[in-house]
Amino acid sequence: MNLLRADEAAPVIALLTDFGVEDGYVGVMKGVMLGIVPGVQFLDLTHHIAPQQVVQGAWLLSTHYRYFPKGTIFLCVVDPGVGSERRAVALHAGEWLFVGPDNGLFTFILAEQTLHQAVALTTPEYRLPTVSSTFHGRDIFAPAAAHLARGVVLDQLGPGLEASSLRRLDGLLATRQGNEVQASVVHVDHFGNLVTSLPMQLIPEFFSAPEAVLEFPELGVRVSERRTTFALSAESQVQQGAFMLADSSGYLLVAIQNGNAAQVLGIKRGARLQLHL
Amino acid sequence: MNLLRADEAAPVIALLTDFGVEDGYVGVMKGVMLGIVPGVQFLDLTHHIAPQQVVQGAWLLSTHYRYFPKGTIFLCVVDPGVGSERRAVALHAGEWLFVGPDNGLFTFILAEQTLHQAVALTTPEYRLPTVSSTFHGRDIFAPAAAHLARGVVLDQLGPGLEASSLRRLDGLLATRQGNEVQASVVHVDHFGNLVTSLPMQLIPEFFSAPEAVLEFPELGVRVSERRTTFALSAESQVQQGAFMLADSSGYLLVAIQNGNAAQVLGIKRGARLQLHL
Amino acid sequence: MNLLRADEAAPVIALLTDFGVEDGYVGVMKGVMLGIVPGVQFLDLTHHIAPQQVVQGAWLLSTHYRYFPKGTIFLCVVDPGVGSERRAVALHAGEWLFVGPDNGLFTFILAEQTLHQAVALTTPEYRLPTVSSTFHGRDIFAPAAAHLARGVVLDQLGPGLEASSLRRLDGLLATRQGNEVQASVVHVDHFGNLVTSLPMQLIPEFFSAPEAVLEFPELGVRVSERRTTFALSAESQVQQGAFMLADSSGYLLVAIQNGNAAQVLGIKRGARLQLHL
Repeated sequence: MNLLRADEAAPVIALLTDFGVEDGYVGVMKGVMLGIVPGVQFLDLTHHIAPQQVVQGAWLLSTHYRYFPKGTIFLCVVDPGVGSERRAVALHAGEWLFVGPDNGLFTFILAEQTLHQAVALTTPEYRLPTVSSTFHGRDIFAPAAAHLARGVVLDQLGPGLEASSLRRLDGLLATRQGNEVQASVVHVDHFGNLVTSLPMQLIPEFFSAPEAVLEFPELGVRVSERRTTFALSAESQVQQGAFMLADSSGYLLVAIQNGNAAQVLGIKRGARLQLHL
Repeated sequence: MNLLRADEAAPVIALLTDFGVEDGYVGVMKGVMLGIVPGVQFLDLTHHIAPQQVVQGAWLLSTHYRYFPKGTIFLCVVDPGVGSERRAVALHAGEWLFVGPDNGLFTFILAEQTLHQAVALTTPEYRLPTVSSTFHGRDIFAPAAAHLARGVVLDQLGPGLEASSLRRLDGLLATRQGNEVQASVVHVDHFGNLVTSLPMQLIPEFFSAPEAVLEFPELGVRVSERRTTFALSAESQVQQGAFMLADSSGYLLVAIQNGNAAQVLGIKRGARLQLHL
Repeated sequence: MNLLRADEAAPVIALLTDFGVEDGYVGVMKGVMLGIVPGVQFLDLTHHIAPQQVVQGAWLLSTHYRYFPKGTIFLCVVDPGVGSERRAVALHAGEWLFVGPDNGLFTFILAEQTLHQAVALTTPEYRLPTVSSTFHGRDIFAPAAAHLARGVVLDQLGPGLEASSLRRLDGLLATRQGNEVQASVVHVDHFGNLVTSLPMQLIPEFFSAPEAVLEFPELGVRVSERRTTFALSAESQVQQGAFMLADSSGYLLVAIQNGNAAQVLGIKRGARLQLHL
């Protein structure tokens, strides 16, 4: 752990939640943390994950975390199981720390990074004195992140956990068999672009393939692409202008030039897709 | 006042406004403050108070302020009377400082904390050189908060005010007579839960009472609760699943399991309620 | 440039984008910057510019920048031309630095401030190692702002540019001939007020003129004002209560007492206006 704090930089806590920004929940978490680690720097990744949508949270975290400084503490709270038996955890994976519920939110992290250590957040002195049943973000997760930021090591937060015991979300990661790839739409961005869970490195021949056909089987929508000509065919209509590209984080994206792909194609987050190369 | 700044921590200014975040009003207030007190740490409690809804602002502040470090300066601007005769004030109450309009925004603070000092913000050198008639947040309140953060004491900001002269909002605080409690819905949160102005400490027997009946008399909605069985009866329908609980800040909350209570019950912020124990 | 960093204050980077806050784009830009300049202070001006609306971005920047400390670095990304030939630039104008696309976003800055230096952002070592085609905010603009914040001088970022070569948006600045003034609605604020591009200093006699008539010729709406009596006449109706005033940044604003001027008058951002004095 000390390796993570070797530089002179102030610690950084990056937050990702589904709390929205109307109710002050994020603000009070920061208030709690400043009481524990004065001067810590906060950075809001997003607080607009759709309520309780762990998949979307896992995805957004995965697209951005690599760009953060070594040692950044990611405080992630998308927690439909708050108050239930789900564990509260802290992970040291790759060059970063992650704090949040053990509900699959770290599925991509665990698939992409080496897990150095995982602990359950059980030590009472690193929680608030009174823990509510509905707001573990303030009472358990924020204090844990703040104590890590002031130099507490993972071991102190609670007992170690086996990597294999950590929860992963089924079906979230893209899979490939031969020329068939299965993935899903994990996010619709601010501009209506469809972000998929398909990393370009899984389809290195994509741009040189003579043809690529993308289907949304549940929706009867098909986007086919030949070299530089693009065409989209849906059941009873042909929409021009839909195309596939690599997004800025290296995942396959479906967009429409100057348009909102989600609206035009009628596709929502969660839609399954198949790519035939 | 010096007691508040005795630790080595950088000063913290926590903001609560109804400015939204589209127009840059919050950003420019921070810009003004950084010009006065470089390096000050900002923390956004919320900027999404409904426009000019002082009650909602007072409420949100009250649910969160206790969690902030000693000495935090709360800069609160929900100010329908900007440009009128309403006073601009700074308060030292409990272990915190509060800056804002004297319009009832600090009703809960004044009810819950010891008021050590209150002043009117009249000293010209602690305002911007030009004060607009519509944006006192930038021109009066933000400079006052920033000067406090750099160590100016309350006395310098303007003349002292009598505690009794400070504005309180009528009917906001919950009242109890025998087994009858009067309160109101002060907030509908991100998840549609109905937050009330009724602190659990006013109803210590709530969880052990054989029955609790909550009525929204203006709306004909009634939520009754017996021991562990919950039932909701409205005029012409019975909705299952509504129940009462203590929210994470210690106030009575009405929720529906996996549902949006505000929508299902048709209840909005401001609704009066009566609890019979 | 060193003059800008002479004080001991930590550098400040103020952000203005059309990225929204749902997708983490702003968060990841900050993550990149913290990796380059640990401890830098961020300040969000707004991330809610309507997608790709350069005019609105230019306007919002112009209303607020003067209130920021000397040396503030404004990182501005409203960039419909990302991936095209438009240049990426950094400017030293007045007492501030500006980083963003050369697409007119700095039209007001260039009209109002002395331009000391302008450069194109071409030096590879001040970009991320891999530059995507769609997210120059993260890959080019954020790194440039961060390097400026840690003391890199403009010359190092790339070759100098002639002031005359920088893009200005046509028709954006208000113009006056005799008693006729042309301008436009550049923003509708959170409260529905119509903000215009007409600075009060262009119409110094406004408040003493016996009459001022404002017309929206494309919309058939007319607001006339005589001394202290206000009246609004539209084609087939007379709406009371519309009036003109100077907004808090010194521009002409059209408002309705306790109402939403944009909705009542049916006027949107972009509407052309003529003022007759």
